[in-house]
Amino acid sequence: MSKAIFYHAGCPVCVEAEQQVAKSIDPAKYNVEFVHLGENGSRLGEAESVGVKSVPALVLDGAVFHINHGADISALKA
Amino acid sequence: MSKAIFYHAGCPVCVEAEQQVAKSIDPAKYNVEFVHLGENGSRLGEAESVGVKSVPALVLDGAVFHINHGADISALKA
Repeated sequence: MSKAIFYHAGCPVCVEAEQQVAKSIDPAKYNVEFVHLGENGSRLGEAESVGVKSVPALVLDGAVFHINHGADISALKA
Repeated sequence: MSKAIFYHAGCPVCVEAEQQVAKSIDPAKYNVEFVHLGENGSRLGEAESVGVKSVPALVLDGAVFHINHGADISALKA
């Protein structure tokens, strides 16, 4: 089972992407975790360390895919 | 079965995204077509009409998701 992490911030662009990602990823291959970086700021460092620069972003097996553009990571820092 | 179309242009960013998309999309739900817009320019109009502005892009049920950024559509026109 591979790990997929979808980072988002609750923005409209994020929500649309989240719904499609959630239903399109193969549940037989990926265990998908959804992380709201606005509500869970303690995960910001982890997201940045794997290369996430904006949300929504999907990390599959450590590779980052920025999907459309909702907000820059810098805008999520307190 | 839903339809998914992955538009790309053979660029390195496209190839990485294509490999991940191909193995992560649920084959029980989506029939995925891969379209190389550089080699198949006749599909450019179709891609633009659904809202594709750059490649690689994945269209799921008519919704466009631009994944990272390889090239703008305009760069693919002869």
